[in-house]
Amino acid sequence: MSPTFSMPSLSGTSLAELQRRHIHDLQKAYEEVMTVFSVEAIAIYSGHAMPYFGDDQTPAFQTYAHFLHWAPLPEVQHSWLLIRKGARPVLFLYAPEDYWHLPAQLPEEAWIDEFDVRPCSETTPPPLCKHTAIIGDVDALAATGSLVGVIQPEALLRALDELRMYKSDYEVACLREANRYAIAGHQAALTAFQGASSELDIQLAYLAASRQRESLVPYQNIVGLNQHAGVLHYQHYDIDAPRHRYSLLVDAGHRYRGYCADLTRTHAGSDAPSPFAELIQAVTAIKDSIIDAIAPGVSFLELHEQMHHHLAEALITHDLFHGSAEQAIAAGVTRAFCPHGLGHSLGLQVHDVAGKRQPDGSPSPAPDLHPALRLTRTLRPHMVVTVEPGCYFIPMLLDPLRTQPLPINWTLVDQLSVCGGIRVEDNVLVTADKHQNLTPSF
Amino acid sequence: MSPTFSMPSLSGTSLAELQRRHIHDLQKAYEEVMTVFSVEAIAIYSGHAMPYFGDDQTPAFQTYAHFLHWAPLPEVQHSWLLIRKGARPVLFLYAPEDYWHLPAQLPEEAWIDEFDVRPCSETTPPPLCKHTAIIGDVDALAATGSLVGVIQPEALLRALDELRMYKSDYEVACLREANRYAIAGHQAALTAFQGASSELDIQLAYLAASRQRESLVPYQNIVGLNQHAGVLHYQHYDIDAPRHRYSLLVDAGHRYRGYCADLTRTHAGSDAPSPFAELIQAVTAIKDSIIDAIAPGVSFLELHEQMHHHLAEALITHDLFHGSAEQAIAAGVTRAFCPHGLGHSLGLQVHDVAGKRQPDGSPSPAPDLHPALRLTRTLRPHMVVTVEPGCYFIPMLLDPLRTQPLPINWTLVDQLSVCGGIRVEDNVLVTADKHQNLTPSF
Repeated sequence: MSPTFSMPSLSGTSLAELQRRHIHDLQKAYEEVMTVFSVEAIAIYSGHAMPYFGDDQTPAFQTYAHFLHWAPLPEVQHSWLLIRKGARPVLFLYAPEDYWHLPAQLPEEAWIDEFDVRPCSETTPPPLCKHTAIIGDVDALAATGSLVGVIQPEALLRALDELRMYKSDYEVACLREANRYAIAGHQAALTAFQGASSELDIQLAYLAASRQRESLVPYQNIVGLNQHAGVLHYQHYDIDAPRHRYSLLVDAGHRYRGYCADLTRTHAGSDAPSPFAELIQAVTAIKDSIIDAIAPGVSFLELHEQMHHHLAEALITHDLFHGSAEQAIAAGVTRAFCPHGLGHSLGLQVHDVAGKRQPDGSPSPAPDLHPALRLTRTLRPHMVVTVEPGCYFIPMLLDPLRTQPLPINWTLVDQLSVCGGIRVEDNVLVTADKHQNLTPSF
Repeated sequence: MSPTFSMPSLSGTSLAELQRRHIHDLQKAYEEVMTVFSVEAIAIYSGHAMPYFGDDQTPAFQTYAHFLHWAPLPEVQHSWLLIRKGARPVLFLYAPEDYWHLPAQLPEEAWIDEFDVRPCSETTPPPLCKHTAIIGDVDALAATGSLVGVIQPEALLRALDELRMYKSDYEVACLREANRYAIAGHQAALTAFQGASSELDIQLAYLAASRQRESLVPYQNIVGLNQHAGVLHYQHYDIDAPRHRYSLLVDAGHRYRGYCADLTRTHAGSDAPSPFAELIQAVTAIKDSIIDAIAPGVSFLELHEQMHHHLAEALITHDLFHGSAEQAIAAGVTRAFCPHGLGHSLGLQVHDVAGKRQPDGSPSPAPDLHPALRLTRTLRPHMVVTVEPGCYFIPMLLDPLRTQPLPINWTLVDQLSVCGGIRVEDNVLVTADKHQNLTPSF
């Protein structure tokens, strides 16, 4: 499927008008999919929360992203969207009268007028005609006995995933707004770090400034002090502040109408060994160089390889490697210093769908040399990607290199290892001729 | 199963020593269960997190409570406990080498010495002999193909649930500590309310003062301003502060080594109509009266009915009802003002297991008149319960009474409705002869 929306000048166009166009274009695109796959309708299930095993408490819930693609209702459950050819979309909104919980409420916004809204008080699916493709967590539904014998049409789902690769102007506006909130959080996190706070308090400062609760962030914020900055998806928030302040890595976002920001900043603390602050600048410069190269037709894998080239040069410049850039890359030195991918597609999910697919939905896996790369595609206008180079001091990856005759400055590596690592990340839109950085400078 | 532990004077006994006794007593109690059910071993699965549908992000995870009953590792996944007759418990701890996440680590604590610890790097179950009962989320395991054809022994599980009704001295010490943290949170929440904060900022102040992140609280904190105080399980945190400050209800806890505090306080705001603050005092007095009546042999259902009697008198005293207490109860007036139960069992789950069972595991459902009551048992020493009377102004429940010829002061009800409602809740241990309130006064 190709994108059906244009890239107009947005100045003066309200978000409501952009959203109206988004819904109309989505209707057209869905109708094309229905024609290709010979179905009359597509029913999208919101999903519902499942309690912890053996308990009556439930973890946080996130509405299915294909549902959010139509309707910005990020916490709605037991609800359905019905999309048909030549008909207005129908929103079956589960909102029973309830004094235990606040029932789901529709905001007073213009997009509601694009839908036939039917409030429901039962958790059973709406009546569906025979030629309806159903997408969503139908296993969860089947477990309740509500839906039996439904098969999710895999190829059709791939086609809908592909639509999500290309962001409409409405979606870009939402991603931009999510970035704006997230940057406010990052600024507050830096202030808390300068005030010698613990990871927990830096996280709470981030949430307060970015105006969100933990269970609604697009991914669990990574707030790593010192060596924790080198744990790529570090998952805790220590309650006590460490004695020394070497470094802080914050990888944290925001969700605006379902759309995710995904930003990382790294800061040197007052106790950081002296080359660390310069290395942060070097990684920031790599990020900017890669963003400069973003344009339609560019292969993301080639950008990833460029990142390794830039990183090799930075290691040489900052006295960590005493050989050539080619040697650092060939010997796997840069991959030991940065084991993750350059970035990924970004949208209604932080690692958005279809990043490792061809446009026709066939698989496009990461290459053997770069197994963690989440985006293997050629860039096209309307894609939004993250650019997040890194440089880490991870013993598990570096130690195997110590036995090899490589010109690595181990004394400096050992000095820097207390800092954990560095990652710097922005969110970038591919435009018709080049790109736009959606992340405010900070 | 009857509790096997004593109630000694705890002064001078360390938490480590209490925990050692707890584990030894649990071993004895499990061995009795194994004898009764003719099994050689009981294997307890920790559970593991499942990603959101169609996504690679996972919601928060809580380790299975029967696992936590032995080992205070509230975030551990893919791990097993193996309990056998006459042998030390074995902890198969899943902790693979990983640079994406911080691997599970055992604390440097004495209880580790009570276990044979075997670190694992695979998610497959440990070798189990034929006569092993397996408890935990085995469906999740079976879905991974790791475990096939295992049946969870329902009656044995009921017997283990029953053990959890009676808290050892170690468990009581943990519940007391959880209360101490939670009260610090409640004090900070009140301060934030007095500073005219939004629900989100009150929640973040609570988390900061009680030293915990949202995903580790025992249940989602309820932070309701104004009418939201009348939504019993209000599930949002509004970002913006309301213009008027009528009331704040905070129902929020803490988890200490897996054990849950569950405390509620309600505060009158500067804009509250004048009888509201006195009504909070009245509900607090009801809470204290009920706690005074707690002792072994007392029926919790009778305490619940006493709450309705006290509430009827409070409605009369504060000019909301102009008839007799008997009339208010018989006509369902008190149930319209307080539709939930007096409280529930508290332990490793906020609504702990076996509250609606007989000691032999057979069902003991809530009576028709009080369907929301979560504890229907006769109190025994070592039980820990919540006591949480309430008084709400919920239109959905009160409006049907308006058409009846009842002497309700609707003018006052309407004035108070902006306040939502009141709930006050403490956590109480049943002792050998009476009770101890585990909640510090606030």
